[in-house]
Amino acid sequence: MTSAYQQLEKTFNQIGLFSDINGMLFWDTASMMPAGASNNRAEQSALISRLQHEMLANPKTADAISTAEQATDLDAWQQRNVQLIRHQYNKASALDPSLVENLSRIKSKCELLWRNARAESDFSLIKPALGECLELTIEMGKAYANQMNCSVHEALIDDFDPGRKTDEIDNIFSQLEAFLPGFVKQVTEQQASRPAPLTIEGPFPVEKQKELGRRLMQTLGFDFERGRIDTSTHPFCGGSTNDVRITARYDENDFSSGLMAVLHETGHALYEQGKPEAWLHQPVGQAIGMTIHESQSLLTEMQACRSLEFITHMAPIAQEVFGRTGPEWSAENLYRHSTTVKPSFIRVDADELTYPLHVIMRYKLEKQLLTGDLLLDDLPEAWNSAMQNYLGIIPANDAEGCLQDIHWPVGLFGYFPAYTLGAMTAAQLFQSAKQATPDLGTHIQAGNFKPLLNWLRDNVHSQGSRYTPNELLTKATGSTIDVELYKRHLQERYAD
Amino acid sequence: MTSAYQQLEKTFNQIGLFSDINGMLFWDTASMMPAGASNNRAEQSALISRLQHEMLANPKTADAISTAEQATDLDAWQQRNVQLIRHQYNKASALDPSLVENLSRIKSKCELLWRNARAESDFSLIKPALGECLELTIEMGKAYANQMNCSVHEALIDDFDPGRKTDEIDNIFSQLEAFLPGFVKQVTEQQASRPAPLTIEGPFPVEKQKELGRRLMQTLGFDFERGRIDTSTHPFCGGSTNDVRITARYDENDFSSGLMAVLHETGHALYEQGKPEAWLHQPVGQAIGMTIHESQSLLTEMQACRSLEFITHMAPIAQEVFGRTGPEWSAENLYRHSTTVKPSFIRVDADELTYPLHVIMRYKLEKQLLTGDLLLDDLPEAWNSAMQNYLGIIPANDAEGCLQDIHWPVGLFGYFPAYTLGAMTAAQLFQSAKQATPDLGTHIQAGNFKPLLNWLRDNVHSQGSRYTPNELLTKATGSTIDVELYKRHLQERYAD
Repeated sequence: MTSAYQQLEKTFNQIGLFSDINGMLFWDTASMMPAGASNNRAEQSALISRLQHEMLANPKTADAISTAEQATDLDAWQQRNVQLIRHQYNKASALDPSLVENLSRIKSKCELLWRNARAESDFSLIKPALGECLELTIEMGKAYANQMNCSVHEALIDDFDPGRKTDEIDNIFSQLEAFLPGFVKQVTEQQASRPAPLTIEGPFPVEKQKELGRRLMQTLGFDFERGRIDTSTHPFCGGSTNDVRITARYDENDFSSGLMAVLHETGHALYEQGKPEAWLHQPVGQAIGMTIHESQSLLTEMQACRSLEFITHMAPIAQEVFGRTGPEWSAENLYRHSTTVKPSFIRVDADELTYPLHVIMRYKLEKQLLTGDLLLDDLPEAWNSAMQNYLGIIPANDAEGCLQDIHWPVGLFGYFPAYTLGAMTAAQLFQSAKQATPDLGTHIQAGNFKPLLNWLRDNVHSQGSRYTPNELLTKATGSTIDVELYKRHLQERYAD
Repeated sequence: MTSAYQQLEKTFNQIGLFSDINGMLFWDTASMMPAGASNNRAEQSALISRLQHEMLANPKTADAISTAEQATDLDAWQQRNVQLIRHQYNKASALDPSLVENLSRIKSKCELLWRNARAESDFSLIKPALGECLELTIEMGKAYANQMNCSVHEALIDDFDPGRKTDEIDNIFSQLEAFLPGFVKQVTEQQASRPAPLTIEGPFPVEKQKELGRRLMQTLGFDFERGRIDTSTHPFCGGSTNDVRITARYDENDFSSGLMAVLHETGHALYEQGKPEAWLHQPVGQAIGMTIHESQSLLTEMQACRSLEFITHMAPIAQEVFGRTGPEWSAENLYRHSTTVKPSFIRVDADELTYPLHVIMRYKLEKQLLTGDLLLDDLPEAWNSAMQNYLGIIPANDAEGCLQDIHWPVGLFGYFPAYTLGAMTAAQLFQSAKQATPDLGTHIQAGNFKPLLNWLRDNVHSQGSRYTPNELLTKATGSTIDVELYKRHLQERYAD
């Protein structure tokens, strides 16, 4: 006889396959699909989303969950799996199936419109569709919020960062807000008082950039037997089980922006490739949300790969790949480039110090959009005024303003905080990894990432969703997010 | 109120989306997927196949068909749609759902094993799985045959070439068998008596070959807004609605083999891109089987693009792309290469004259495999002895023998006849197109494919599945497959 629990695992194997299929379709849409296929692709994804929702928000699933919750013979992983399934079921069953399908469709539509609106720098091209997307997202958030007894914003954030409270975010962000603007000013003045780093002139042929990226991915431990790298407008890590696909974009005049994207997405990919094999497709076997996910990408990119040690390892390889030499290629000079602080318009190109300010302003703006305190009509202006407040600069147009990110057009309201919470988590995990392996920097400088990867595999990747983000971090480092530790990291890197 | 007919259209919209999704997954598996993802991919495809079958072989679908068959307000396209739906339903409902899922899974498994077995030239590596695949295919064929009151082989052929009878195939093939071996001998002797064409030395960089292929695809009318071209081990045309993806493979030492594959697959793609817009996803809007499909690829490749006119158009473009000149690049010399007849082991590389013999022997072998008169154990030997009979040569190993084709490993028993019936259909359609546009050759020589494409759009592509293959051909040319006409085509091209 199949137990209720086994029945649930079977159901979630299938639900996981639907996620895999939509993962593949999303990857293909972003990196391969010809433009004329977009309508039909939207229908494909909407169908899969609807079927997945039907299977999840199903009375049979509800019965099996209730029975499994009473079972006394489950181990800790299985118990946690049931708990996660219950949470997914509660959220899904709060939604009308037509809402799920309509949201999937409007996201596909908005993504296309966004590409065009951004290219034309014309917010009006996406406003009506974005309004529809926002409205449906609020409808979803309200249904969640009723179930969860919290605000719409918190209910949406929970989809990306399970269990995260807005009180905690507000508290962390207000500490950063008190610290960062002054510190940014101090650092930019310090850096301005010294001679500028030597310019590194392009062009850097895309094929060479790709070669450099692939070599460093291999160094970091990316498994090309279970993944690949391609090109897309907006770099991401996606794909499906045992098939982790990252993308990057390349600028012929600046190799470091593309390279940093590759290293960032590789961090995500290492997490996905390190998930517990025994729990494929089960909720407990998945990554535990985007704060931890971003902690893995940012630990790789910001903590490990922007260190002088890594750059010392990378410099001769870059020289070899591009066939270039000269004093501007010294590790010292490259390091100075990668730690230059300068307020700028585009979040994904922002330096480590100004980046959190981009995130905090988006977090505040989306909160207002969700409550209705800010209307979409007024978003471009509100955006520009926030930029002036936080960074002292005003975008010349919406392409470098409120149209720069894909997130809201594809319904990812509540996602942004994870970038900065992830950056802080990364600093904290990296410090613990260094405590566990005191000569970690020496290994990194030698291109040996095994000690770091092993530590991450043990403490993060292989844990799947066994613990909440705060529990996981506490187990690995002794505390939840520690603002002071993060400030110390920034001071050590930038204030000297 | 929704009529039963409208309900059916809705159901088939969804069934069509499942086909689209599996089309994308298949394309990805063949051209992009990392090897480690294969097990999970097999599960994804099996899930989609099962869901599609469930939706098709459903009592609700049966009821709607019965009601729609009684409707008096349907136009001719709708009536034909119902007729095709009934046929699909009858075949699908004859199958146990677990058989559908198991077949999907074993095909995925076999495809992987085949790649390896072919690379190692070791039939034993695939024999057990191929045996399972054959067994399940026979089970499927028997279930079909009971419904359709015909042989297993004919029931399977019907999946690829609707309504085609084995009596007709046997009759056509026996006429070719009577004609071809002697004619091949005559032509090879003639060609041997003249000086050989001048050698065209490589290497031809793959990037340049791709460029040449893309330019000629554009000339032929391929719509890159609704399709793309990539690389795979076995060239094919796949993808999904408004997203037609072809693949090719390239040999650095011989550009013509890769180019011919590109032109061949482009012919398939033009058919797919020209299907009637109003019937997307409906059975009546699809291509009417593989004989007509191969007629489109072979009309493009063999009839149009191996003509002296096309080669005269192509020669200077190839010279420009490869940056080469010399007497060996004359249209005359290139034409002699592309019409050289020589018995060889690999079907896909065979010349126009020996190709049908490859097909006929496969048709006979698969018939015996399906009846059990030939055991898989004895296939390699039976293959080699058939090669000696038909072509006078014996493969040195199974890689150039019975392991060369992907068809049987992925369950495509009954597919092969379509290649030769398609070649004959192509000759017949091309002759009618020339009658409709007497200066067609001049247009082709000028790189103007519009008259030919328009004729094909009108007479073939836009007809979808409105007619059976024999009806379609009769409407376009005045008769069903005409063996004498095909023989005349071969004689005109090769006997002078």
